Amino acid sequence: MSSKKLKRKDRLERLKKEIQENPFITDEELSELFNVSIQTIRLDRLYLNIPELRERIRNVAKINYKKVRTIGEAEIIGELIDIELNKKGISILETDSSMVFKKTKIVRGHYIFAMAESLAMAVIDADVALTGVANIKYRVPVLSGQKLIAKAEVTRVRGNNYFVHVKITVKDEQVFRGKFILVSI
Amino acid sequence: MSSKKLKRKDRLERLKKEIQENPFITDEELSELFNVSIQTIRLDRLYLNIPELRERIRNVAKINYKKVRTIGEAEIIGELIDIELNKKGISILETDSSMVFKKTKIVRGHYIFAMAESLAMAVIDADVALTGVANIKYRVPVLSGQKLIAKAEVTRVRGNNYFVHVKITVKDEQVFRGKFILVSI
Repeated sequence: MSSKKLKRKDRLERLKKEIQENPFITDEELSELFNVSIQTIRLDRLYLNIPELRERIRNVAKINYKKVRTIGEAEIIGELIDIELNKKGISILETDSSMVFKKTKIVRGHYIFAMAESLAMAVIDADVALTGVANIKYRVPVLSGQKLIAKAEVTRVRGNNYFVHVKITVKDEQVFRGKFILVSI
Repeated sequence: MSSKKLKRKDRLERLKKEIQENPFITDEELSELFNVSIQTIRLDRLYLNIPELRERIRNVAKINYKKVRTIGEAEIIGELIDIELNKKGISILETDSSMVFKKTKIVRGHYIFAMAESLAMAVIDADVALTGVANIKYRVPVLSGQKLIAKAEVTRVRGNNYFVHVKITVKDEQVFRGKFILVSI
């Protein structure tokens, strides 16, 4: 029993550390990592007073929205979990069945585009910006329920032109990439 | 009085012809063309039994949706007013205030993108298609209330790749153009 306790204590510490390093890890991923049930992970989080993933995302997003100048919070498709104006930004979008083509159950391209475009816009340090040009590539079809992570990087600012690269992944696999030129007006 | 009657008769004939040649002309445009009030145009249409623009668009669209293979009617952003599979297609979208950025009242880019992408998809003669690559350019900001006309042209079919160009105009001014490569699966 003491060994079991020690094991739990050990797990709790590692769990805490893991979530600190990777705040957007899911309970499912944690359960695989520690080889315990999802229920156990939930109890561990409860004990450690760590909120569930959706709550953690929302808490982080709330702070980040305040930094955005170009567009309103509700205009960003996905939750903004990291932002450094004119440098980079990260957003998360959980896809669902409302976003798919009926026939194929594949997420419609314009949702993914909207996620990328709105993140590109959010990351710009300007009052008002519009998309001028976009060059995009869909690499892998996205299925309903998959969690998209978009990372934007401002690669160049020239006058009122902002060059932004956005990559979207599902579990480390790139599903989309876009190059945007935004114009501040 | 007889001359007045003749004038009206003349106008009615020209009006009928005008709408036949350009079925998507608005009452406002007709009123400018014939230098009479919009009310007069409405009465003329009533007399000639020609439905209002929205109705005319819907009637034409209904027939066109049946020809589309790749996607469902509700999945096309805009009304499909002309389609010839693997050749070309035209759609109309009346923008409204729900589509704009709060700050600028400019229509959000992804609505325009969605209009173009869904038309590109509709025009393909395949059961299932996905967007692979898109290269797009926004030329002029679109304001709420403006009527968008998208014209798609299939420029090349190579194996299961379909090359589609889409141009979107507001009153003959190009506001957007996109080049898409769609992949049938």
